[in-house]
Amino acid sequence: PHCWTSCAGSSLTSSLRWSLRSVRESSTRSPSSWRREYWLKMEESVSMEMDNNVMDKEEGCYDSTEAAFSDDEEEVNNKGKKREFRFHPIKEAVVEEPADITPWLDQLDDTMKEKVQQLQKTSDTETQCEVMQEVVDLIMEEDFDPEQMSALASCLAELFKDHFRGDVLPDDITDESLEESVSKPVCLIFRNLVTMQEDNSGFSVLLDMLAEFYQKQPKIGYHLLYYLKASKAANGKMMLYESFAQATALGDLHTCLMMDMKACQEDDVRLLCYLTPSIYSEFPDETLRSGELLNMIVAVIDSTQLQELMCHVMMGNLVMFRKDSVLNILIQSLDWETFEQYSTWQLFLAHSVPLETIIPILQHLKYKEHPEALSCLLLQLRREKPSEEMVKMVLSRPCHHDDQFTTSILRHWASKHDDTLGEHIKAQLIKNNNQPRKRQR
Amino acid sequence: PHCWTSCAGSSLTSSLRWSLRSVRESSTRSPSSWRREYWLKMEESVSMEMDNNVMDKEEGCYDSTEAAFSDDEEEVNNKGKKREFRFHPIKEAVVEEPADITPWLDQLDDTMKEKVQQLQKTSDTETQCEVMQEVVDLIMEEDFDPEQMSALASCLAELFKDHFRGDVLPDDITDESLEESVSKPVCLIFRNLVTMQEDNSGFSVLLDMLAEFYQKQPKIGYHLLYYLKASKAANGKMMLYESFAQATALGDLHTCLMMDMKACQEDDVRLLCYLTPSIYSEFPDETLRSGELLNMIVAVIDSTQLQELMCHVMMGNLVMFRKDSVLNILIQSLDWETFEQYSTWQLFLAHSVPLETIIPILQHLKYKEHPEALSCLLLQLRREKPSEEMVKMVLSRPCHHDDQFTTSILRHWASKHDDTLGEHIKAQLIKNNNQPRKRQR
Repeated sequence: PHCWTSCAGSSLTSSLRWSLRSVRESSTRSPSSWRREYWLKMEESVSMEMDNNVMDKEEGCYDSTEAAFSDDEEEVNNKGKKREFRFHPIKEAVVEEPADITPWLDQLDDTMKEKVQQLQKTSDTETQCEVMQEVVDLIMEEDFDPEQMSALASCLAELFKDHFRGDVLPDDITDESLEESVSKPVCLIFRNLVTMQEDNSGFSVLLDMLAEFYQKQPKIGYHLLYYLKASKAANGKMMLYESFAQATALGDLHTCLMMDMKACQEDDVRLLCYLTPSIYSEFPDETLRSGELLNMIVAVIDSTQLQELMCHVMMGNLVMFRKDSVLNILIQSLDWETFEQYSTWQLFLAHSVPLETIIPILQHLKYKEHPEALSCLLLQLRREKPSEEMVKMVLSRPCHHDDQFTTSILRHWASKHDDTLGEHIKAQLIKNNNQPRKRQR
Repeated sequence: PHCWTSCAGSSLTSSLRWSLRSVRESSTRSPSSWRREYWLKMEESVSMEMDNNVMDKEEGCYDSTEAAFSDDEEEVNNKGKKREFRFHPIKEAVVEEPADITPWLDQLDDTMKEKVQQLQKTSDTETQCEVMQEVVDLIMEEDFDPEQMSALASCLAELFKDHFRGDVLPDDITDESLEESVSKPVCLIFRNLVTMQEDNSGFSVLLDMLAEFYQKQPKIGYHLLYYLKASKAANGKMMLYESFAQATALGDLHTCLMMDMKACQEDDVRLLCYLTPSIYSEFPDETLRSGELLNMIVAVIDSTQLQELMCHVMMGNLVMFRKDSVLNILIQSLDWETFEQYSTWQLFLAHSVPLETIIPILQHLKYKEHPEALSCLLLQLRREKPSEEMVKMVLSRPCHHDDQFTTSILRHWASKHDDTLGEHIKAQLIKNNNQPRKRQR
C-alpha cells in the first residue's frame, strides 16, 4: 500500500500544483476550518515537498488509515463545483522539542554564555527582545572573540527555531500587523544593522554574525528581505541585503538573492508575491536579465496572485521585463509548463512593451509545441496594423500542414488592412525572389 | 488499500484534468510508444471516468501491483521537465466476447433473421457493407413489420459494438482517411438517409430504425453528426440531424444535441473539437444562447486544441458568441474552473465582439472570486480609450480594501487619457450627487 505523504512543490508539474492551489483557494474560503490536502505518492522515487502554505514541513509520512475523509454537505451544496476534495485535519505528528543548545554553550565566553542562557529561560517576546539586544551589544564590543561566532550562531538558530516555522507575512496586512511581525527577537539583528552606520566597527562584526547564522539557518536570508521591506525602521535600506550577500560564503549578490527567493518560493508563496515588487525594483540587474526569478514566481502563483501582480505592474510598482532582455526571457519561457507560460504572457501584456520588441519570437514558435505563446500572440497581432516586420516574421515560421496560425492571422489582416497587407507580402516576395531590378532605358 | 482506477472526466476538477491533459500532451510526443496515466482514487465516493483519448472505457479496476512504473531515462533527459509521470501499458483486462444476438433473433421476420445471421458470419468490411445495404433495403420494403424494430436494433447494436469502441476520428486527417472512416457498415444507415428524399416512404421508417438504435447505443448520435460533417455524400445535409432528433424519444433538437455533444466530450475530445465549428454554424439557436456547450468544450480541451479553435474563430469558420447572449454566457462562466475561465476568455477575445457589449460584467466581478475575468478584462481595458460607460462600470464594482483593480485601470487611463478620464469621472460624480443645476440668472 502506498504511504500518504505530504507533497507538492517543485517535483510536481506546475499544473498539478495549480490544481492543488485552485482547490486550496476554494477550500480556504471559510477561514475558521483548516483543511489540508494530501496527494498520494505517484512514484516512490520522486521526492516531494509540501507547499508550506498548506502544511508544516516537519510532518512526515502518514499511514493511509489515519487520513480522515469527510463530506461536508453544506459546503458541497454551496458552489459544489469548486469544493471537490476536502479533508479534516489529522493530529500533528510533530512533537515540539525544547531547544537544546548544550553542544555549543561551552564554546562561548562566560559573559555571552550567561546572556544566552538567560535568553533560553525567557519566554515572553518583550523580554527576549531586551536580552537579545544585550547579546547584540556584546557582539559589538571590542573584546568580542570572533572564534565563538559559529557556536553563537548555532545557539541562536536553535533558540529561535520557531521563528522559522509557519508564515512570515501576517494574514491580514496592516501597518500594525507588519510592525508586529518585524518586532521579533531575531529581527533585532536586522534592526541594529539598519540603524547603524556602515563605518561603525561593530557593523561588520554583526554582519559576519548574520552570515554565520545564514549557514545554520538559510531562511534568514529571505527574512532579512522581508524585514527590509516591511519594517518602517528599515525604510529604503534594501542595499543592506547586498552587504549581507557579500558577507556570506556565497559572496555574490545574484547567487544569494536567487537562493533566498527560491527558499521563499518553497516556504511561503504569499511572501514571495509580497516581496516581488521590491526585489525587482531594488535589484534590476539581478532580476531583469534572465527568466530565473520569473520562473520561480509563475511556477507557484494562483490566479488571484497573478491578477494582483498584474495590478502592481499597471500601477507602476512592478517592472518584470526590460526591453533588452524581454525577448530572451519569453524564448526561455517556451520550455516551461502550460500555466507558467500563460501567466508569463499575462504579466508581459500588463507591461507596455511594444509588440515589435518581441515579434522575432515567432520564428521559434512551432505548431503543437508552443500553443500557449501562439494563442497569446494571435490575440495581440490581430489588433495591430501589420508592419513589414510582422508580416516577415509571420511568414518565416516553420511550416506544418495542420498549422493554421499563419492563415488565421493573414486572413484576419486581409479583412481589415487589405492594401497594407498586400504591400508587405509583395515586398517579402520580392526580397525572397531576390530578382535584380531591370534597368529602365 | 486503494484501488487503481481509470479516472478523469467530469468528476475531477477541470484543473486536474488539465494536468492530465498537459502530461498526456507531452507524453504522446513519440507516437510509437503508447502510454497511459492512472490516477489514484482520491475518495471512495467520487466516481471517475477516464477521458477516452487516453484509455478505453471498458477497463475496470486494477490492483496496484499490476501497474508498472518506469523511468524512461532518455526521455527524461529530453525536455525532462515535461515528462514527469509516465507509465508503460499493462495488459488489457478486457476480453473480446463474440457478439451474442440470440435473445433477439427469433423476434425477427425470417427474411430479416437470415440477413442478420449472414451479417454475423461476415468478417470483412466490404461484404458487411453489402449485406448491411440489403438489411436496409428490407427495412424500407412495404411489408417490413415495425414490431421487430427494437429487436433488430438490438441485433445491430450488438453486432457492431466494436464500431463504438475507440476513436472515431482518424489519427491523420486526410480526404482519404475521412472517407474510409465513414465507410463502415453502420454508416450505411446514414448514407441511405442522406441520399433519400424525405418524402420517400422508406425515409421515416429508416429514421425510426435509427432512433431505435439510439436507444440501445446512444453514441450513434454523435456518430451521425460526424458522418454528416466528414462524409462527402452528406454534403450540407446537417439538417438530417434535426429530423433524427425529432424522431428520438427525446423529441427535441436542443436536448438531443446537448446529450450527444456531452457523450462526445466524454468519449473523444478530438472529435469534439473537429465537430465544434459545424455544430455552432449549423445549430446557432441551440448553441449560442447558453454556456452549456461552451462549458463542455473548455472543460476538456488542451492548449493546442484551444489554439486551434481560436484559429478557426479568426478564419471565420467558427462563431461561439453572439452579441445578444455573450454577456450572459460570460457571467455564467464566472462559476467555472480556473482553466475553463481562461479558455473562455481566450476564445471570446478571438472574436470581434466590441468590448462595450460585455463591459457590464464588471459589476459582477468580485475581488478574489473572479481573478481570471479581472485579469483578462484589465488587459483589454488598458488598450481602450475610456468611454463614459467603461468608467461608470469600473467605478461601480463592489469595493474591497485590498482590491487594486480599479486603482490600476484608472491610474493607467490617467497616464494616457488624462482629460477624457477626468471628464468621465466628473460626469459620474455629478450623476451620483444628483445635484440639480443652479439656474444662471
